[in-house]
Amino acid sequence: MTQNLVMQADELSQYLREVFPESNDYGFNIKAMSDGHITVGMEVQDHHLRPGGSVSGPTMFALADIAAYLIVLAHIGKVALAVTTNLNINFLTKPQPGNLVAEASLMKLGKRLAVCAIEIRSSVDNALVAHATATYSIPPRP
Amino acid sequence: MTQNLVMQADELSQYLREVFPESNDYGFNIKAMSDGHITVGMEVQDHHLRPGGSVSGPTMFALADIAAYLIVLAHIGKVALAVTTNLNINFLTKPQPGNLVAEASLMKLGKRLAVCAIEIRSSVDNALVAHATATYSIPPRP
Amino acid sequence: MTQNLVMQADELSQYLREVFPESNDYGFNIKAMSDGHITVGMEVQDHHLRPGGSVSGPTMFALADIAAYLIVLAHIGKVALAVTTNLNINFLTKPQPGNLVAEASLMKLGKRLAVCAIEIRSSVDNALVAHATATYSIPPRP
Amino acid sequence: MTQNLVMQADELSQYLREVFPESNDYGFNIKAMSDGHITVGMEVQDHHLRPGGSVSGPTMFALADIAAYLIVLAHIGKVALAVTTNLNINFLTKPQPGNLVAEASLMKLGKRLAVCAIEIRSSVDNALVAHATATYSIPPRP
Repeated sequence: MTQNLVMQADELSQYLREVFPESNDYGFNIKAMSDGHITVGMEVQDHHLRPGGSVSGPTMFALADIAAYLIVLAHIGKVALAVTTNLNINFLTKPQPGNLVAEASLMKLGKRLAVCAIEIRSSVDNALVAHATATYSIPPRP
Repeated sequence: MTQNLVMQADELSQYLREVFPESNDYGFNIKAMSDGHITVGMEVQDHHLRPGGSVSGPTMFALADIAAYLIVLAHIGKVALAVTTNLNINFLTKPQPGNLVAEASLMKLGKRLAVCAIEIRSSVDNALVAHATATYSIPPRP
Repeated sequence: MTQNLVMQADELSQYLREVFPESNDYGFNIKAMSDGHITVGMEVQDHHLRPGGSVSGPTMFALADIAAYLIVLAHIGKVALAVTTNLNINFLTKPQPGNLVAEASLMKLGKRLAVCAIEIRSSVDNALVAHATATYSIPPRP
Repeated sequence: MTQNLVMQADELSQYLREVFPESNDYGFNIKAMSDGHITVGMEVQDHHLRPGGSVSGPTMFALADIAAYLIVLAHIGKVALAVTTNLNINFLTKPQPGNLVAEASLMKLGKRLAVCAIEIRSSVDNALVAHATATYSIPPRP
C-alpha cells in the first residue's frame, strides 16, 4: 500500500481537538508532515514532571501514542476507531526539563494493521530520550 | 535472588504519596501484596476516558507502570531512583466504563534489573483488558 | 469470542509436522492442551547451545513462536496462513543445560488478532527463563 | 557515553566466528560499520524458509539478535558475556525469497544497558520486512 498523506496538518489538528479534547492538556501540536512521516510537539507542564524535573513515563507514552495515532490518520483519513493494539517503549535517558518532540515514521500501512516507529527527543538539547514502536488496528472500511 | 516483601502495603502507600503526589490524580490504591505479587486499583475519572467512555491508553499505561514500580519497591525497599527502561503493552479489549485493577507478578529480581508482568482487568466484569511487561533498572546499592 | 479448543493434540501435532517439517529439528512436542492453554516441550540439542551450555536466544524465540502458533491453531483450526505480527521476549535467566517447556495462554482471540503470553521454563529445575507475548494476525475466514 | 567504534569489521567478524561457530549456519557477514551503526548480511538457506518460500520468524529474530550483539561489541569491545535481556520484533511484510540485510543503530550505550533498533530488509527489493528493538545487559567492567 502506498503511503501518501490524505489529510493536511490543519485539518488533522482540528480533528484531533474534536475527538480528543483532553489533548489540549498536553499541548500537542503538529510541526511537520510528509508522506510516511509526522513531527508532533508537546508542551510539557508541571504536572507532567516527576520529582527532580524529569518528564514522567506516562507523559512520554501519551506523546508516542498520539504521534502514532496522528500518522495513521494522516494516511487513512478520519477513522476515529483506529485503536492501538501494541505499544513497546524504551526509555533511553532522562529528558532535560522542557518540551518534547516526537518523530513518527510509518513502517507498514496494511488493510488491517499499521505499524510505526516513534523517536522522542528533548527540545532543549535534541537528545533521544525514548523510542517506541506502535501497532494500530484499522477497522474495516466500506 | 529470593523474592520476599521488604515493605508492607501501608508503608508503601505512604511512600507513593510522598514521591509521586500526582498519583492521587489516578486514585491508585494497593489492594493486596504477597511475595512476588501486588494488586493495585485505579479509580477511573472522567478525564481518563476516551469518547465513548473507554479508558484511554495512557491511563492504562500509567496503571501498568505504577504497579510495576510498586512491586519492585515492595521487594527492594525505598529506592526512588529505580526507573522503567522498557514497557510493552498489549491492549486486548475496550474496558467497560468503571474502575480498573492491575495484578503485577515479579518474574525476575536481579541486582540490576527487575522484570514483571502486569494484567489489567475491569472491575466491572473482570475482563482482561490489557497485558504489559515492564523492566526496571535498579541503581547500585551501597 | 469464547476460547474453546477445536483440535486435539494428536491432530495438531500431525498438522505441525506437515506444514513445518523443520520443527523436527527442535523436537517440539505437545504435552498438554486445554481451553485457552497449551504446553509445548522442546528437546534441546547441541546446536541450540551457546558457548557455556546455555540455550541460545533464537532457540527460545523459536519455542515461544511455535507455542503461540499452536495455541492459535488449536482454537481456530487449520489456518496455516496465520502469521506472527509482533513478538516481545524478555530473557530472565540463563537456563540450565537441558530441555525447555513453554506454557502459552490465550489472552485474546478476536476475528483478526490473537494475543498470547508464553512462559518458558527449564525442564531441569523449573526456573522461569524467558517470558514472551505474541500477536498473530488471523486471515479472513469464509 | 560517546558512541565510537572500538573494533573494526575484520576483527569483529573473526571474533564472531570464534564465539558463535554456529553463526556460519546463517552466513552472517558484516557489510559496513561506522560510529553507532552496523550493516549485517545473512545468506538465507533452504532450511530458513517456511512453506511458500518466506523466511521464518526465528531466522529473522536470529539476524536481529546478532546485529544487536555485533553493534554492542563493536562499541564496547570483546565482552562475550553481554546478553540480550529484551527483544521486541514487528514482522511487517513477507520477504521475497532471497538474502536479508539488517541495519542496526545504537540508541543508548550506558554503563549497564545498551539499546538498539534494527531494520531488516530484503536484498531482493529492499522492502522493510521487520523492525526490532533490543536491549543488551553489559557486565561490569574492571
